[in-house]
Amino acid sequence: MQIAMIQDKIVPAEELESAYLDRGIYFGDGVYEVVRSYNGRIFALEEHLQRFANSLAAIELTSVDINIVRERVLKAFNAAGITDAKIYFHITRGSAPRDHNWDPHLKPNFFLTVTELADQRQVKNEGIAVSTCPDWRWKRCDIKSLNLLANVLAKADAAKKGCDEAILVDEAGLITEGAGSAFFAIFGNRLQTAALTANVLASITRKFVIEAAKNVGMELVEKSLTPQQAAEADELFIAVTTKDIVPVVKFDGKLIGDGKCGRYTKLLIEEFRTFTAGS
Amino acid sequence: MQIAMIQDKIVPAEELESAYLDRGIYFGDGVYEVVRSYNGRIFALEEHLQRFANSLAAIELTSVDINIVRERVLKAFNAAGITDAKIYFHITRGSAPRDHNWDPHLKPNFFLTVTELADQRQVKNEGIAVSTCPDWRWKRCDIKSLNLLANVLAKADAAKKGCDEAILVDEAGLITEGAGSAFFAIFGNRLQTAALTANVLASITRKFVIEAAKNVGMELVEKSLTPQQAAEADELFIAVTTKDIVPVVKFDGKLIGDGKCGRYTKLLIEEFRTFTAGS
Repeated sequence: MQIAMIQDKIVPAEELESAYLDRGIYFGDGVYEVVRSYNGRIFALEEHLQRFANSLAAIELTSVDINIVRERVLKAFNAAGITDAKIYFHITRGSAPRDHNWDPHLKPNFFLTVTELADQRQVKNEGIAVSTCPDWRWKRCDIKSLNLLANVLAKADAAKKGCDEAILVDEAGLITEGAGSAFFAIFGNRLQTAALTANVLASITRKFVIEAAKNVGMELVEKSLTPQQAAEADELFIAVTTKDIVPVVKFDGKLIGDGKCGRYTKLLIEEFRTFTAGS
Repeated sequence: MQIAMIQDKIVPAEELESAYLDRGIYFGDGVYEVVRSYNGRIFALEEHLQRFANSLAAIELTSVDINIVRERVLKAFNAAGITDAKIYFHITRGSAPRDHNWDPHLKPNFFLTVTELADQRQVKNEGIAVSTCPDWRWKRCDIKSLNLLANVLAKADAAKKGCDEAILVDEAGLITEGAGSAFFAIFGNRLQTAALTANVLASITRKFVIEAAKNVGMELVEKSLTPQQAAEADELFIAVTTKDIVPVVKFDGKLIGDGKCGRYTKLLIEEFRTFTAGS
């Protein structure tokens, strides 16, 4: 008899619920997005849906109608009635007995949560400390996949060092991005961040940060930094959907600037607000 | 109200079953093993449990008692009563609302299936075709983790080319291993396979293949191969728990030897049988 076991309980294989057969858990065979709302309006939903479509295509999950995803996101957001909400959603290739090869007729699994966003005023005002960590992730970090164990372990490493984010450094000694954020340095009026390659996620927040930088007259340099270069920047910050721009005031133990949110970072945070106010 | 959505159905967050909150699905935050039985006896269970313990330690999942894992594997295997069984099991860090950072008190999730092994006589007799594919996996493939999307995509690439296994090639142009197997080449009486590094799983079958090779008087070379070198080998094979030794008769479209299972591979298959007969 084919059987399954959940904790110490034996279950006949045919009675197993589909959640236990999800290719998401067996292989991380799925992709996800996180969007947020400001004051009751979802910010940059179309950009996130486009990236989600790109991720789905990259893993050859071709049977998903992105219009249905949009409908579900809006339906859930409206049902939750949370003004400042974080919406997480993923689609996996579906549920089936474990086999690397997939049946093209498998029905994808959609899952979503809407939760209240924690208040970020403190981190945004005071800034955070970050530490560097080897980038152990796979070679297609442009795909927002469920394979995130390297990110989880990097974040744990940072937490052990009393830091809030891990800044990932590849084998060439260059910073790719944060374990859960994009990473930026400011030198004078130049804003520097890694170029978008297969090793870097096309961060939506990054796109708006770059727009904000142009609006405030900054020059953009898309070039990877070494940790040494980052430590010598005038200002540092990370960018992530759930918190937009967060100043980095300590990098591998070294104080950045005077240890407070820098002048240009402040300008960018204000400029970013003009985008989200209208969302 | 915090809510979740499964397919198009809204569920209050507090009614969500724990399987939907598994860190295994959010992050692939877990590790797994596959063991098999020959004629009613599990082969190399202790070796697999030791590797499982190593994987758990590597991802800092420290609260698992490996003796309880052994008990559960044996209990499930006995309950299933399958003579030639494949036993898959994983442990994830537990179920909780999505957050990279984990609560150290989280209860790990254990999941196992026992299924009948498909008959492998045909592939073992006739051999398989393999094709090369860029190795997109993360940098800690010595950990048998649930982050397997790169393996899934590599296998899909092989299937499109009419092949049964993908042989992964790293950025230096060297073969690491198969997407779901160890990879071996034979030149004269020399058996060559990649050395065990952070990019290669410490395959249990590999260990027994090496023992078998010594027993039949072969010389071992632990050194990575290029695809060109592999294509020129006298014999090729893959090794994997569920099928032990499987001859490779075609490599990227090129026939290996006379396109049949080679002399040494046959010897190794026979020698391997002496191990499993007593299991």
